[in-house]
Amino acid sequence: MTRRISKPLRIGKVTVGGDAPIVVQSMTKTDTRDISATINQVKELEDCGCEIVRIAVPDGEAAESLATIKKNVSLPIIADIHFDYRLALNALKAGVDGLRLNPGNIGDKDQIAQVVAAAKERGVPIRIGVNAGSLPADSQPKAPMARRMVKMALEQTKLMESLDFDLIKVSLKAFDVPATIQAYRMIADKIPYPLHLGVTEAGLPRTGAVRSAIGIGILLYQGIGDTIRVSLTAHPCEEVFVAYEILKSLGLRRRGPTLVSCPSCGRAEVDIITLAEAVGKRLQGVTKPIKVAVMGCVVNGPGEAKDADVGIACGKGKGAIFRKGKVAATVSEDRFLQALMAEIESLNEEGLQ
Amino acid sequence: MTRRISKPLRIGKVTVGGDAPIVVQSMTKTDTRDISATINQVKELEDCGCEIVRIAVPDGEAAESLATIKKNVSLPIIADIHFDYRLALNALKAGVDGLRLNPGNIGDKDQIAQVVAAAKERGVPIRIGVNAGSLPADSQPKAPMARRMVKMALEQTKLMESLDFDLIKVSLKAFDVPATIQAYRMIADKIPYPLHLGVTEAGLPRTGAVRSAIGIGILLYQGIGDTIRVSLTAHPCEEVFVAYEILKSLGLRRRGPTLVSCPSCGRAEVDIITLAEAVGKRLQGVTKPIKVAVMGCVVNGPGEAKDADVGIACGKGKGAIFRKGKVAATVSEDRFLQALMAEIESLNEEGLQ
Repeated sequence: MTRRISKPLRIGKVTVGGDAPIVVQSMTKTDTRDISATINQVKELEDCGCEIVRIAVPDGEAAESLATIKKNVSLPIIADIHFDYRLALNALKAGVDGLRLNPGNIGDKDQIAQVVAAAKERGVPIRIGVNAGSLPADSQPKAPMARRMVKMALEQTKLMESLDFDLIKVSLKAFDVPATIQAYRMIADKIPYPLHLGVTEAGLPRTGAVRSAIGIGILLYQGIGDTIRVSLTAHPCEEVFVAYEILKSLGLRRRGPTLVSCPSCGRAEVDIITLAEAVGKRLQGVTKPIKVAVMGCVVNGPGEAKDADVGIACGKGKGAIFRKGKVAATVSEDRFLQALMAEIESLNEEGLQ
Repeated sequence: MTRRISKPLRIGKVTVGGDAPIVVQSMTKTDTRDISATINQVKELEDCGCEIVRIAVPDGEAAESLATIKKNVSLPIIADIHFDYRLALNALKAGVDGLRLNPGNIGDKDQIAQVVAAAKERGVPIRIGVNAGSLPADSQPKAPMARRMVKMALEQTKLMESLDFDLIKVSLKAFDVPATIQAYRMIADKIPYPLHLGVTEAGLPRTGAVRSAIGIGILLYQGIGDTIRVSLTAHPCEEVFVAYEILKSLGLRRRGPTLVSCPSCGRAEVDIITLAEAVGKRLQGVTKPIKVAVMGCVVNGPGEAKDADVGIACGKGKGAIFRKGKVAATVSEDRFLQALMAEIESLNEEGLQ
């Protein structure tokens, strides 16, 4: 996992690219013109760990709302613009920290030049956000999707570079995972800019989390990607949750608890599914990066429980509570949850995995 | 995605390895000694698409139960054995289609030789199933986990080969995703046998699906892996569901519907989350491999809806229903769900994506 080195840029207070941590983004799903609902959702997103928030700007009223929204939140805000370059100009006036333009629908070169000039004046980065679903008619309609997306992104990059602008990020999103991976891999060596990863329109959480984890995970494992957005048809905090699970699984970020729990099998002598669900529920309130193991038998139980900050290896009617690799107590089945949670609460952040 | 070529073998009626489709496995979570509960769960697993079922054999009574279970189910059965080689001998007598031995705890060479001889006589394959959580004390305890797991698997492989046995499958499971990937990559070129992939003790579905998707997905994308088991602390059919989502995301298997749905944003003029959830719920009963798109606006809506078998691109108060790339109808908001489901039901399997 050697990371591709990109040219870092700043979206407000957040650095994207270079050797900065992979940044987690999401998007508000409120009507942008409903200023208080949108402010509330940005704050919810901040609370759940989101680091940059994108807001759709479908019309002039939405663009105007951005000024008030921006003044009332602390997370960096990116305006998401399609179809009308004037909305981008108005979003910049409203003080946004970044723009996302869809090169497939944003307009002609002169219009883009106006946006670039205004962004440059303010030092505001622009993401060239290509989507498979909104590529314009192409001279090579039969070319593979990945190639068509990359071609569009490179054309737009060159246009911006010709305007002496380099505060650029690029994304190349498709629903198709192999096409998404192929597109990002193709462009990774061709431009020096940070890459924003995503699998677009990935669907409902149960399936979309899997699809996003594979697409984003494969690229991150190849060292590609500086910021990620998980697209799920759900509350945006679910997107942020899945984004951190992806990053945590690859050891790229730490956030909140990690629960190691065995799937249970015909060997388990306690109801491990119910116990793990109860522990998982209790851990939702924990913010420290603690690793907890809930294990159902002696096969991998002691090994995994020892390897966690706190763990339980259950046997018939009793279980061994582990703390930092050592047995801290042996407890009866009615005290499993209580004893495990007491150990978790007693550990402070120092020295957690 | 050039697939590693492995030496195929048969687990009952199912081929694993070579150019066979990637096989989906799971495990019963009933008490194996409860014969009727275990038979019922194997049947549930068959209904949800599982192709091979593993059953834990913790004691002699469980081993004896296998004969009756095996007679009453049609899926191939693998006996999961730890600690006591005699349970493996009894499982073979009961007629199982495969064995999984944990080399970390199964016993000495003579005991393994007895199991191998009995398996060979019946033509039953053995999986050498290494787990990070149950490696024995090692001469190099500080060596990286991946290296220690591979060393253990290679020792066991050589032992079986020295007994003139080659019906071998290997797994190298850890909770740590990079260690899991590294271990499988290390062994992939060293042995010709099929590899069974898994990230062990991955946890509850919401996090475990992400972790499994990344670990298994990265390996499959590299062409490594012949059969997979997603370990989740949940009903085993959830494991099977996630396994297929992984395989579908990479274009390796088809099964049931695929829902493309946009995450919604400040641009949406209908409640796309509620609509997508309703469509998702209705699609649960659909078994044909149909691709359905539920899209909230005109940015990517028409593009994605056209690309699906059936799709809807919603606008203010009305939506365009697409069927095979063409607008089939324009419907008012109160008829979105009904019209989309009618199109889905009218399509037959021929010509689906």
